[in-house]
Amino acid sequence: MRECFELRDTDAGGRIGELTVPRADVTVETPALLPVINPNLDTIAPRRLADEFGAEILITNSYIIHGTDDVRERALEDGLHELLDFPGAIMTDSGSFQLSEYGDIDVTTEEILEFQHEIGSDIATPVDIPTPPDVPRERAEAELETTQERLEIAEGVDTGEMLVSAPVQGSTYPDLREAAGRHADGTDLDVFPVGAVVPLMNDYRYDDMVDAVAAAKRGLGADAPVHLFGAGHPMMFALGVAMGCDLFDSAAYALYARDDRYLTVRGTRLLEDLEYLPCSCSVCTGHSPDDLRALPDDEREEELAAHNLHVTFAEIRRIKQAIRAGNLLELVEQRARSHPTMLDGYRALLDHADQLERSDPVSKGAFFHVSSESARRPEVVRHHRRLERLSVPDSLFLTEGQPARGDEFDDSWRVEPPFGPFPRALSRSYPLTAEVPERTDRAALSAAADGVARLAEVNPDADLALGHRGWPAGVLERVPESVELIDLTSD
Amino acid sequence: MRECFELRDTDAGGRIGELTVPRADVTVETPALLPVINPNLDTIAPRRLADEFGAEILITNSYIIHGTDDVRERALEDGLHELLDFPGAIMTDSGSFQLSEYGDIDVTTEEILEFQHEIGSDIATPVDIPTPPDVPRERAEAELETTQERLEIAEGVDTGEMLVSAPVQGSTYPDLREAAGRHADGTDLDVFPVGAVVPLMNDYRYDDMVDAVAAAKRGLGADAPVHLFGAGHPMMFALGVAMGCDLFDSAAYALYARDDRYLTVRGTRLLEDLEYLPCSCSVCTGHSPDDLRALPDDEREEELAAHNLHVTFAEIRRIKQAIRAGNLLELVEQRARSHPTMLDGYRALLDHADQLERSDPVSKGAFFHVSSESARRPEVVRHHRRLERLSVPDSLFLTEGQPARGDEFDDSWRVEPPFGPFPRALSRSYPLTAEVPERTDRAALSAAADGVARLAEVNPDADLALGHRGWPAGVLERVPESVELIDLTSD
Ligand SMILES: [Mg+2]
Ligand SMILES: [Mg+2]
Ligand SMILES: [Zn+2]
Ligand SMILES: [Zn+2]
Repeated sequence: MRECFELRDTDAGGRIGELTVPRADVTVETPALLPVINPNLDTIAPRRLADEFGAEILITNSYIIHGTDDVRERALEDGLHELLDFPGAIMTDSGSFQLSEYGDIDVTTEEILEFQHEIGSDIATPVDIPTPPDVPRERAEAELETTQERLEIAEGVDTGEMLVSAPVQGSTYPDLREAAGRHADGTDLDVFPVGAVVPLMNDYRYDDMVDAVAAAKRGLGADAPVHLFGAGHPMMFALGVAMGCDLFDSAAYALYARDDRYLTVRGTRLLEDLEYLPCSCSVCTGHSPDDLRALPDDEREEELAAHNLHVTFAEIRRIKQAIRAGNLLELVEQRARSHPTMLDGYRALLDHADQLERSDPVSKGAFFHVSSESARRPEVVRHHRRLERLSVPDSLFLTEGQPARGDEFDDSWRVEPPFGPFPRALSRSYPLTAEVPERTDRAALSAAADGVARLAEVNPDADLALGHRGWPAGVLERVPESVELIDLTSD
Repeated sequence: MRECFELRDTDAGGRIGELTVPRADVTVETPALLPVINPNLDTIAPRRLADEFGAEILITNSYIIHGTDDVRERALEDGLHELLDFPGAIMTDSGSFQLSEYGDIDVTTEEILEFQHEIGSDIATPVDIPTPPDVPRERAEAELETTQERLEIAEGVDTGEMLVSAPVQGSTYPDLREAAGRHADGTDLDVFPVGAVVPLMNDYRYDDMVDAVAAAKRGLGADAPVHLFGAGHPMMFALGVAMGCDLFDSAAYALYARDDRYLTVRGTRLLEDLEYLPCSCSVCTGHSPDDLRALPDDEREEELAAHNLHVTFAEIRRIKQAIRAGNLLELVEQRARSHPTMLDGYRALLDHADQLERSDPVSKGAFFHVSSESARRPEVVRHHRRLERLSVPDSLFLTEGQPARGDEFDDSWRVEPPFGPFPRALSRSYPLTAEVPERTDRAALSAAADGVARLAEVNPDADLALGHRGWPAGVLERVPESVELIDLTSD
C-alpha cells in the first residue's frame, strides 16, 4: 500500500480514501474536488473555499506564478499558503497544458520541481507531454517516452516532504495508457493524473474517456490515488469515481460563471435561459433568475461561481454517501440520463464490469435493477462466474415460479432476472436480495438466460429445466437446447 | 377553459399553469407544492414557508380545526389567514382520510363546506369516500356513487368566491377513475384531487398510481387543475407532473423530519445512516451529519424539516424549468432510476405515450435518447403516426448510411433509431434533431424497425430497401419481408 494513500471503502471501481499530504500536514478525504485558483484573479477567495465550501485541497498553476513577477516574488518569499491564504493542501500544476499550447520553454524537470518546492507546493507536477486523442500511434509512443523519462528524472529530485504527481499519458491507445500506468506505478511518485482527457470531455467523448481511465487503472493498480485531470463538471463526477478516480479539479466553477453559465448535475444551463433556479443552495434560494441577471458583472460572476461550487461540492458529498451506502452505480445510472453521451460513458463503463468487479464489495445494501444497463453490472458478472462453483444435483428445476412438487427433480432453484438461477439458500445474500421492477426488460431476461446457459455449460450431465414467465423466443435462444423449457404463463 | 386555471406551457403531460384563487386574491403558479400545516403544531411557521421557501399556497385540515376548541374559535373569529399568518392561498382538506380511519361523523356536505367557508378557506373540500385500492368492484362503484352525490350537493352550496375541489375516486379501476373524472369535470367545481392514491404510494405501486392518474385525466380533460392528493415525496413529483398533475401536498417534509428522515430526490435516508449530507441547502452546508444528530430534538426536527422543504421546492423549480426547456421526460428518466418501483412507474407512464402525445409540444429543444425507455416516448409514437401521411416515391432507400448513388432508387431517406425513417428535409425539425448515443440499444433499433414496418404497411406498392448497420436478426424480423435488407457493415 502506498504510504500517502489509504482506502477506506469501495463501491464498484469507486472508493473513499485518505490522501496524506505531509508537507501541508493535512489528510484529504477522497473523492476530493480541487478548485482551480488563478493567483491573478480569484473569483472566490481560497479562505472562503475552505470555510464555506469545505475545500480541503486546491490546485494552482505554477507556470502562471512563475510568469507573473510580483506573484512569483511573494510566493517565493511567503509561500503559497500565505499568498493564497489557504489552510488546506495546495497542489501545483506545472502548466503542461499552457506549455503545449504556447510552445516549449527552456527549463528542466529539476528546475520545474524545485520551483514548485520553493514556493511551498504540497503536491508538485513535472512537465509531461499531454498527447491529444487520435494522434498517430508513433507520436503517442514517442511523447509517452518523453513523459516517462521526465518522471524518472522527477523520481531522482530531492523534494523533501512534497508529493509529486506522475501523469499517465498514452492518447487514445488503451495499451499505451495501461503501459503508462504501469510505468508510473513503478516509480516512487505519489499521485497519478490521467492526463489529456480534457479534449475528450470537450467533445463529450465520455465513452473514450472511460476507456482511457480504465486502461490507466489496469496499469496503476488499486492503491494509487488517481486524478482525473481537468474534469470539473459535476455531471460526470459519479462516472469518473465509479471508474476509480479520486481527485477532480474544477476550473469550470469560475470559468463558467464568467460566461453566465450555471452548472447542474444534469448539464450546463445559460443564465439567460433560466426562468427558475433549479437548486437549493443559498444563492438560488436567495435570488430569482431576474435578480441574478440584474447584478453588476462582478457580483453576478461571484454568485454564479458560488452556486457552481455548491452544486459541485454537494455532488462530491452525494458520491461519498453513495459509496458508503453501496449505491454508487445507482447514482451513475441517474447521471447517465443527463445526455446521450453520458449514457455512452455508462455503457462503456459496463464494458469494464469485469475490471470493476475486482474492487466491488461482496455485500452491500440492496441491488436496484433500474434500467436495462443494470443487467450488465459487476454483480451480475460475478454471479455468473459464481455459478461455475455451485454444485448442482442430477436434475434441477430452475424457476421464476414455485418449486416443483413431486419427485421429478432433485431440487428447485430460483431464477430472477438479471441474475439467472441460484439455490434458494442464497436468496438472502447480496446481490440476490435485489429489488427489481415488475415490468422487467429484455436485457434482464437475456442476462438471466445467460446465467442458465452458463450453468448448463459447466454441468453438461445435469438434467436442467427452466420455468420462465413467458420469455420471448429471442431470449430463450440463449439457453442451450439441452435445457427443457416450461412457460409458466401458458397454463 | 376553466376560469380559474390557465395553461402557460406544456411538456409531455406536464404543464405550467396559473391557478387563480379569487378569495385569497392570489394567483398560484403550478406545478405547486402545498405544505401541509397542522394548526396544532407547525414545524415550520407558515410565514417562513412563504418568505424563505416561496410557498404560494398551503393546505390545512378543517377536521382538526373543527375538533380543537380554541383553534376553531380563533379560526371562526379571525379567519385562517390571520390564525396561520400566511399571505398566500389556503386550501382546506375536509379530513376525509381521518373520517375513513375513525368512522363517519354526523355532518352534511353543506355543513362541512359552510364551516370551511366560515373559517376563511380559499379552496374547500367536500367529504368524499377515499376508496382504497383493490377493493371489490361493487364497493368501488357504490362508494364512487356516494362521492358523486356529494359533489352534486357541493355544486349547489353557495360558497361565494371560495373554490371547491371535486375529488376523483374509483379505486384501482381505470374505467371508474375515468368516469369519475368525467363526472367531476361536468360539475362547476374547480380543483380536482385524484384521491386515495396514498395507499398505492405507501406500497411503492407507482405504476398503479400512474394508471389511476392517467384514467382520471382521460375523464377530466386538459383544462382541469389536478391535485395528486397526499403525494409529498420529491422523488416522484416529476413523474406525477409528467402525467399531468398540477398540485402536490406535502406532509412528508414535517412527518419525516419528526422521524429523523431526510428527503432526497433519490429516496429517503435515515439521518443515522448519513455520513455526508448530499445536498447544497443552507442546512446541509451549515451542518455536518454529526452536528445535526447532536441538536436537541425540536431543533433537529426543524432543521430536517427545513432541509426537506428545500429539496422539495427545488425539485418543483427544477420541474418547472424542465417544462420550459422541454426536457421534462429527461428529468423523469433520471428520477426513474431512484428505485425499481419508480422505473415501473416510468414504464407505466410510457404505456400512456399516446395520451401524453396529445399535449406534448410539436417542437422543443432537443430529444435526448438516454435509455431504452426513450424509444417509447410520445415523440416516437407521433413520428410513427406521421409516417402514414408522408408521400413515398415508387422506390425508396431507407438508410443509416449515405444516400444511394445512381438511379436504383427514386429517393433516399435517413433512418435514425429510435425514430426510424424520415425524409432528409425533416432532419432539422424536432424530434429528428435528436441526440442519440453512439452505443445504441435494442429498444431503439426495434422502434426504428417498427417505423420501417409502418411505412411499408401504409405504402404496400412502394419498393423499399433498408440499409442498416448490423441490426440483430430479432430486430430485422419486425420489418416485413417485402423490404429489401442491406447490412451496411458487411462490406
Ligand atoms: Mg465515440
Ligand atoms: Mg404492480
Ligand atoms: Zn444554487
Ligand atoms: Zn439540505
